[in-house]
Amino acid sequence: MKLLFDLLNQFGVSGEEFHIRDFLIQYIFKRKSTWNVLPEVFWGDEFHDCILLKFGNPRTGLFAHIDTIGFMVRYDNQLIPVGGPELIEDCILVGRDSLGEIRCKLKIQEDLIFHDFPRKIDRGTRLAFEQNIRIDDQFIQAAYLDNRLGIYSALKVCEELKDGWVVFSTYEEHGGGSMPFLLKFIQENQPIKQAIISDITWVTEGVEAGKGVAISIRDKFIPRKRFLDQIINLADQSKIPFQLEVEAYGGSDGREVQFSPYAIDWCFVGAPEDHVHSPDEKVALVDLDAMIQMHRFLIQNL
Amino acid sequence: MKLLFDLLNQFGVSGEEFHIRDFLIQYIFKRKSTWNVLPEVFWGDEFHDCILLKFGNPRTGLFAHIDTIGFMVRYDNQLIPVGGPELIEDCILVGRDSLGEIRCKLKIQEDLIFHDFPRKIDRGTRLAFEQNIRIDDQFIQAAYLDNRLGIYSALKVCEELKDGWVVFSTYEEHGGGSMPFLLKFIQENQPIKQAIISDITWVTEGVEAGKGVAISIRDKFIPRKRFLDQIINLADQSKIPFQLEVEAYGGSDGREVQFSPYAIDWCFVGAPEDHVHSPDEKVALVDLDAMIQMHRFLIQNL
Amino acid sequence: MKLLFDLLNQFGVSGEEFHIRDFLIQYIFKRKSTWNVLPEVFWGDEFHDCILLKFGNPRTGLFAHIDTIGFMVRYDNQLIPVGGPELIEDCILVGRDSLGEIRCKLKIQEDLIFHDFPRKIDRGTRLAFEQNIRIDDQFIQAAYLDNRLGIYSALKVCEELKDGWVVFSTYEEHGGGSMPFLLKFIQENQPIKQAIISDITWVTEGVEAGKGVAISIRDKFIPRKRFLDQIINLADQSKIPFQLEVEAYGGSDGREVQFSPYAIDWCFVGAPEDHVHSPDEKVALVDLDAMIQMHRFLIQNL
Repeated sequence: MKLLFDLLNQFGVSGEEFHIRDFLIQYIFKRKSTWNVLPEVFWGDEFHDCILLKFGNPRTGLFAHIDTIGFMVRYDNQLIPVGGPELIEDCILVGRDSLGEIRCKLKIQEDLIFHDFPRKIDRGTRLAFEQNIRIDDQFIQAAYLDNRLGIYSALKVCEELKDGWVVFSTYEEHGGGSMPFLLKFIQENQPIKQAIISDITWVTEGVEAGKGVAISIRDKFIPRKRFLDQIINLADQSKIPFQLEVEAYGGSDGREVQFSPYAIDWCFVGAPEDHVHSPDEKVALVDLDAMIQMHRFLIQNL
Repeated sequence: MKLLFDLLNQFGVSGEEFHIRDFLIQYIFKRKSTWNVLPEVFWGDEFHDCILLKFGNPRTGLFAHIDTIGFMVRYDNQLIPVGGPELIEDCILVGRDSLGEIRCKLKIQEDLIFHDFPRKIDRGTRLAFEQNIRIDDQFIQAAYLDNRLGIYSALKVCEELKDGWVVFSTYEEHGGGSMPFLLKFIQENQPIKQAIISDITWVTEGVEAGKGVAISIRDKFIPRKRFLDQIINLADQSKIPFQLEVEAYGGSDGREVQFSPYAIDWCFVGAPEDHVHSPDEKVALVDLDAMIQMHRFLIQNL
Repeated sequence: MKLLFDLLNQFGVSGEEFHIRDFLIQYIFKRKSTWNVLPEVFWGDEFHDCILLKFGNPRTGLFAHIDTIGFMVRYDNQLIPVGGPELIEDCILVGRDSLGEIRCKLKIQEDLIFHDFPRKIDRGTRLAFEQNIRIDDQFIQAAYLDNRLGIYSALKVCEELKDGWVVFSTYEEHGGGSMPFLLKFIQENQPIKQAIISDITWVTEGVEAGKGVAISIRDKFIPRKRFLDQIINLADQSKIPFQLEVEAYGGSDGREVQFSPYAIDWCFVGAPEDHVHSPDEKVALVDLDAMIQMHRFLIQNL
């Protein structure tokens, strides 16, 4: 679990993903020689803060976004959200500006939110929930399980992967924007016809904690039924616990696959969490395990 | 009218267009040898459930979406919309899941909608309005005139078309997503500079049933005036009855032409209907006739 | 200032940019031989109503949109907005249809807006605020400072530019749609990694008139921090007055750079104005001057 704890402690509010990117690059270069297949690694300024790993001859891509929700400092101690964080009075926020480390509380006044840090914070500074990882034999609870667990699952998949792209994208929490150039690069290098989104979804009345990884039939957007049927058939064969999700709202990097100029089928496959986008996101460990197994199984068998 | 009745009886809720796709492929392969020009037909998995027909040396594309609005089964007998269907208490919905045929009623409770089918329906099953085609000497009334009439008009255009792309797109009712790859394929195969959208619009205080096909100056999005002026001049010369539409809302596959990475002009040209997105969509037969004639005229003369 | 006055007097409501396009082409062809570097000029039907200028070996693009907000005539004397104009009872609107010049007042009735022109106006006719330019030693006030000042700054940059793209885009006020094909052309001709948006922003509690050009850390969308840091460092070195903007709303052509299939960093750099999207937009002359200087400095030093 050291890797997971390390991931959970990296800063990565949308637009400032270079911290988590640097951590991932270090990890990948240290570990890749121990993986079954040595991937080609694509990264650097020409990919902004994204990373692509190509294993063998890919048919499928596994996509995990590396950014998190958070806040940005505006004027007069005001904060504005990055992505859609829960607004919780007095929750602790942390960050860093030109004058040093910041640790403060979130304050709500009428419709606006503020920080209570005693000095002025540089305009545009990103703040994030202070991390507090709690784990027992059933659950993990922490900030940013969405999408540190998605990254974690993707890295576990890397260990045994023969053929496939594993892709770490940015900005997903705030409208997206890296997927278009990532997909273009993939399609012009070694194209794929199918994409699995490694991300975290919601516990609802139909998708419960502890009942397996969620395979999403739809969120705000709708993947093609033919592809979903194929995924669900494979999932049935796999004997790995899973649940079918059907939601009218929400989105993922899948949205940008859908609207890309490539005929790539996509499906969201990830564990459900409670207390979404709060410092207390909570996922059942059996669902995380099912998520990793399902990603491995699907990318191998699709 | 057999073709039109057949089209109206195909299932094709967004994401599950393969039924109507299969019907169209059968029709096209049966009929294309009787058409003035034999088109190249592009279809199959690499085009998802879309079809492209290339006639001669195209300058212009005619685009008709083949999906319809509908509903998807969530949990606990709840339904969520696919696209923007009218919610009508007790209207009949039909579909099919792993256990067989489904026919049930739509029920509204507070802000939620449900089905009343006596057994559980598989999660993610798509339901559609039961078809009920009514036709007299003035009007046709049925579910899914939007956009079965657009497909019908496109197929009638095929009979005499010399040069042009005729394209059957998917997902239009639910945010789109096939147009980007269709346009990329067209532009890399035999590029076009102009697109006509074959789709159905609304009867309003300015666009009346029976007064001709609507040429849309704008909906939510705005085509380029220079191209509209050219279309309207041609329409004037054609002597085919038409009306100019100016709306602040609504959209079509034209939106995705507008936002594509190609400088392609576009214009929506289609008959207006009453009772939009209900089981009782109603179009004047003279407007349908004007729509077909105008499509033929424009694609030939642009 | 003659150039600026001329720009302010051109009609260019989104979708009908050919007037301002024609003016710009005339100006560019008259003046380009006096510029330090002779640019390649790309324009004509294949670029719709856009213009691209390539100077030397570009690393960076400067983008100015040439359209303005306005109104379109619907039915029964009703108007609908193009972009987001202020709705001001009795403000004067001007335009032209097939019967000649139009000058009328805007009337508000309940939630709808109308014109009071004594005769019917052709459907789809675009109307714009009547121009009224006021200038003193501190401020310029007029309609369409957004984005005639952005164009003006871009043309001033052209005079001394060695290496760079200067791009005049369309439709920005109404959802965009030209940036995708402009970016594709640039990337396939002489690609860039960075984009500066030359546009006008808002005076707020944090960005004041007279305090310098605004460099935007974010609007609705968020550029990459690494690039912003680089820009802000350069701006510090430049000694040109600037202010850092942090907003939760608003957008620009930067949005379409963000969502393009190219890894291009972007940043909005422009003077703030009061009375946004009204006939009385107001900008401090020192801020306009700082905007021009900063564009010159950044495009040279990035």
